Amino acid sequence: MIKVIFRPENIESHCKFGENLLEVARRADIFIDAPCNGNVSCGKCKVKLVKGKVETKKSHHIKDEEWDEGYILACNTKVIEDIEIEVPSNLSSSMHGMKIEDLSSPKDKEIFERTKKLVFDNQMEFNSYVKKDYIEIDLPTIDDNISDFDRIKRYLRNHLGYTKVFCRLQMLRKIPNILREGNFKVTITHIPRGIDRTTIVNMEIGDTRDRLYGIALDVGTTSVAVCLVDLYKGELIAKASSGNAQIKYGADVINRIIYSTKKDGLEKLNHAIIHETINPLLKKMYKDTGIDKDEVIAFVAAGNTTMSHLLLGVYPDYLRMEPFIPAFLRAPFIKASELGIQVNPETFLYIAPSVASYVGGDITAGVLASGIWSSQENVLFIDLGTNGEIVFGNKDYLMTCACSAGPAFEGGEISCGMRASSGAIEKIKINKDTFEPEFSIIGGDKPEGICGSGIIDLIAEMMLVGIIDRRGKINKNLNTKRIRFNEHGIGEYVIAFKEDFNSEKDITITEVDLDSFIRAKGAVYSGAATLITSLGMDFSIIDKVYIAGGIGNSLDIEKSILIGLLPDIEREKFMYIGNSSLMGCYLTLMSEDARHKLEEIGSIMTYVELSVYPSYMDEFISACFLPHTNIENFPTAKNLLEA
Amino acid sequence: MIKVIFRPENIESHCKFGENLLEVARRADIFIDAPCNGNVSCGKCKVKLVKGKVETKKSHHIKDEEWDEGYILACNTKVIEDIEIEVPSNLSSSMHGMKIEDLSSPKDKEIFERTKKLVFDNQMEFNSYVKKDYIEIDLPTIDDNISDFDRIKRYLRNHLGYTKVFCRLQMLRKIPNILREGNFKVTITHIPRGIDRTTIVNMEIGDTRDRLYGIALDVGTTSVAVCLVDLYKGELIAKASSGNAQIKYGADVINRIIYSTKKDGLEKLNHAIIHETINPLLKKMYKDTGIDKDEVIAFVAAGNTTMSHLLLGVYPDYLRMEPFIPAFLRAPFIKASELGIQVNPETFLYIAPSVASYVGGDITAGVLASGIWSSQENVLFIDLGTNGEIVFGNKDYLMTCACSAGPAFEGGEISCGMRASSGAIEKIKINKDTFEPEFSIIGGDKPEGICGSGIIDLIAEMMLVGIIDRRGKINKNLNTKRIRFNEHGIGEYVIAFKEDFNSEKDITITEVDLDSFIRAKGAVYSGAATLITSLGMDFSIIDKVYIAGGIGNSLDIEKSILIGLLPDIEREKFMYIGNSSLMGCYLTLMSEDARHKLEEIGSIMTYVELSVYPSYMDEFISACFLPHTNIENFPTAKNLLEA
Repeated sequence: MIKVIFRPENIESHCKFGENLLEVARRADIFIDAPCNGNVSCGKCKVKLVKGKVETKKSHHIKDEEWDEGYILACNTKVIEDIEIEVPSNLSSSMHGMKIEDLSSPKDKEIFERTKKLVFDNQMEFNSYVKKDYIEIDLPTIDDNISDFDRIKRYLRNHLGYTKVFCRLQMLRKIPNILREGNFKVTITHIPRGIDRTTIVNMEIGDTRDRLYGIALDVGTTSVAVCLVDLYKGELIAKASSGNAQIKYGADVINRIIYSTKKDGLEKLNHAIIHETINPLLKKMYKDTGIDKDEVIAFVAAGNTTMSHLLLGVYPDYLRMEPFIPAFLRAPFIKASELGIQVNPETFLYIAPSVASYVGGDITAGVLASGIWSSQENVLFIDLGTNGEIVFGNKDYLMTCACSAGPAFEGGEISCGMRASSGAIEKIKINKDTFEPEFSIIGGDKPEGICGSGIIDLIAEMMLVGIIDRRGKINKNLNTKRIRFNEHGIGEYVIAFKEDFNSEKDITITEVDLDSFIRAKGAVYSGAATLITSLGMDFSIIDKVYIAGGIGNSLDIEKSILIGLLPDIEREKFMYIGNSSLMGCYLTLMSEDARHKLEEIGSIMTYVELSVYPSYMDEFISACFLPHTNIENFPTAKNLLEA
Repeated sequence: MIKVIFRPENIESHCKFGENLLEVARRADIFIDAPCNGNVSCGKCKVKLVKGKVETKKSHHIKDEEWDEGYILACNTKVIEDIEIEVPSNLSSSMHGMKIEDLSSPKDKEIFERTKKLVFDNQMEFNSYVKKDYIEIDLPTIDDNISDFDRIKRYLRNHLGYTKVFCRLQMLRKIPNILREGNFKVTITHIPRGIDRTTIVNMEIGDTRDRLYGIALDVGTTSVAVCLVDLYKGELIAKASSGNAQIKYGADVINRIIYSTKKDGLEKLNHAIIHETINPLLKKMYKDTGIDKDEVIAFVAAGNTTMSHLLLGVYPDYLRMEPFIPAFLRAPFIKASELGIQVNPETFLYIAPSVASYVGGDITAGVLASGIWSSQENVLFIDLGTNGEIVFGNKDYLMTCACSAGPAFEGGEISCGMRASSGAIEKIKINKDTFEPEFSIIGGDKPEGICGSGIIDLIAEMMLVGIIDRRGKINKNLNTKRIRFNEHGIGEYVIAFKEDFNSEKDITITEVDLDSFIRAKGAVYSGAATLITSLGMDFSIIDKVYIAGGIGNSLDIEKSILIGLLPDIEREKFMYIGNSSLMGCYLTLMSEDARHKLEEIGSIMTYVELSVYPSYMDEFISACFLPHTNIENFPTAKNLLEA
């Protein structure tokens, strides 16, 4: 056996001669970002060989100076003797780092209030599917000696109208002692079905009706966000997010699915989302709030169809292969504890229904939270996640499609990209004369990377000041040290020199990154255009554009239009609605009416398969331009570029 | 720490100075029978000290010669230094030994056929609550690309009429691969509720409708019996029984309940029934039949109310304390695998409903199998188990009561008593001149003990030949070496000398045993008498007497009447119906109609609390005589004794 030591944690692992270094690292639970899943195409799995020799190849992702320092790509390296590897610290933090969100942000508050208002505006009730009732039961006597469970059932029948009462084993085991410790004054937590049936899932001594909590969870391909919800008051108590730990197995759903077909791949992916992503987030929130996991009794999750499969540990490979069949769109109700999720063992996990293989529960939940289903106006809903999903419709109909945007909007497949968390550059302005940038960084002074909204800003600015042309190619003739070309002739623009921030490396955007991002924005724009065209309409029909997704609060609509991500229509029609999937989960937690609406949305939404529209590919190619080959459709950009 | 070695297995255990030897043995999983649960009253925990010293006391259970050889009672021994203990081998086998039952026995076959006939005679259907259906589903195409689960649901809706189809997580995980491996021709196992709902619990490739198995389980306080049932054909495939491993914690329900209140007591009792009793029986049957545990998809169990609590791990102590409240009478449907029972993980465990704290599901199941509920005639049903339960009624009403008979009918609390398994003396005749016995032994030549039916024979014979008087006292004036008295003046009759059978010890019956047994039979007779008297009737009203229980096939009705266990009425009214609880479980497995009938029996049966009848205690005292103080009610015995 060969020994591999991973620094700086000095984790020791063993492998056979010739094993792939990325696989060895994964087995040792070392986080190495590998969005392309070992295809040597993204260059993100760069690590430093500090001792020993390996069998590897230089690629264009490694500069000459890096090569000399020992940098290699883990994915195209074979281990042939004992080695020591230095894993750059930013690899583990840039995509994966946990972030406790600030609930006091005005924008978030506004989004939350808008979401809650939907319930009231639509004559829906706040009536969670989990209920608590405080009951004071007659004490047993020798003449009234029915069993404890029958006594509870009698009370529920006579006082609350439930004629059919069920309970679980763990619950049954609690009954005799809890009843007596509480002197037959207890609070039951139960899940009604219909008007006359209910299942008791918990029992507590005394009146604990004001302590009832739930979890809303958005499982994104790149980012995972979770809210701890006070079901009694209907308020958010805490919110946290982190990268999806599955990223190490691939950046997008296709690479994850491929990984799931490998030996133990599905188990590893399931473990990564549950034990390496969700549970750490939950534990952190429980610690911060003092709420016990056993008090968390409701759970609603949303994710795209692949994420829903991986969350439940269901084999997803038939999603990827023609005829693209998911195992399920609507998951059965199961217990979160069956998956190992850290909540009350009796808590059911409700997963938002998917519509098709590539339009998932994150979209139905997002549509729920957006309120399109109650809108008289025509709404275009764009979710800028790892995939780009688009919905168009109003209260009478809902059309949807998916476009393969990749993870660029969340910083994925961009060499210095990162999630919109601490250290991310989110806004940029470039001086048109000096080409020097000015930027703002989320939560700090030291830039670690650039998030989706920062990249939009950056590309628009680069285009406007002439650093790049409309194909995204860097101008070789500008007089600035910030523009440079490597030995392969690939150009890059340096946003932040390491010297200026005492960092490990420069923060740059390369022509490869630009190309990725332009394809991503082109996919979204062309998807929206094709969806609306398929209905015989054009963008002029749109009354509202809702932008959702983890791209960050700083999404600049104007610049998004300038680069051709969004159509050039009246600015007041646009609204950023945040993580609408997460808000949809919140509504579903809080209101059975909302949950029924969500089910209805899942049923009525019509999926449009873009690939069957021959015009889609033409539209996509035309959109892979800044802002578009047909600049007439983008008068704002046209005027500015001409100016 | 002090070291204790238990021979012959040489199991080493450690304990503190002064710890109780019985507790040390239990902790080391050494089976030491202790029916009285450490009260120094039964004398069954006799072990031999072969090395070292202990702190102990001699009791009347230990003869002088035994004392000299090192015999002590584990329950009144404190460990004070390193010791070695010899555990007599018969302790572990006599009550606990596993027995594979012979399905070809004519008596058993007759009972089984009679049970099945009940279903047909009462217009009930064989319609198990678990169904298998073979389905051939349309293959998915790009135009018909609904999810796998939706495809199954569509088939079930269109072809089988189920509009609401549920499934479990483990099942969902199986769907994509099983469907494709079976080319969408699969057999689903499902549990319908009502006409339009069902829950899929398993899926297999191809047509496997002929492989569907269930378990019927009777959890007795002393004995546990289990049948492996072919649900497709409705036949018994295998039958096995063993002692309930909980015996080491107490012989009767009261001692078990007391043990459950000790630290980890409930967990140990639950472990003993599931992991030390039920699972070994199941594994043995699976091995013998080649049936896989995953093919076992239905499970019906019956036991008295305490056994039902302990099976589910529900705290039973409030059953024992006034006002005697069980946690439940009807258990919720739970999965057998939640309890660790070795069947398909999706198999539900249905437990026969109890009627009251001391009339359990074994009685409702027994009543179901007996057919009293459809009888025009008045039937007296007597279950001779560890408790004696009595039911009286016909198709119009059912009355029931429980009497504290103790475990004597199953060989418990009798010094040489054992279950009706291999080595048990089951029939005895005593020569009236020589007082020499002749006996037959179950499955062999070498007697190991005496079972309930053997004891009945023995007592009747001893009474008829004058070895004992009507109080059960041994005649001191007979000229036979088989009668002897110990230093405390307690007499015994030797059934088998150890020299004659090359055994470890003589098989005897003592005056203490006789007293236990006479109280047991008195409790049953007086219970039946009081129950019938409470209705203003007497034994002449009885048309049929069904005797149920594990007392064995050899129960001699004539001798049972002679000793006053059964009333002296026409012999053709009596019928032995075997383990009716187990047969009731079989019916419940096989027929939803039968299960509904069982639920109905549980609801309509009226429980009579004997302790509130002042006449019961008088009746009991009168019955603690051979056959009874009022011998006029037993003309057969009167005539024989006078003769």
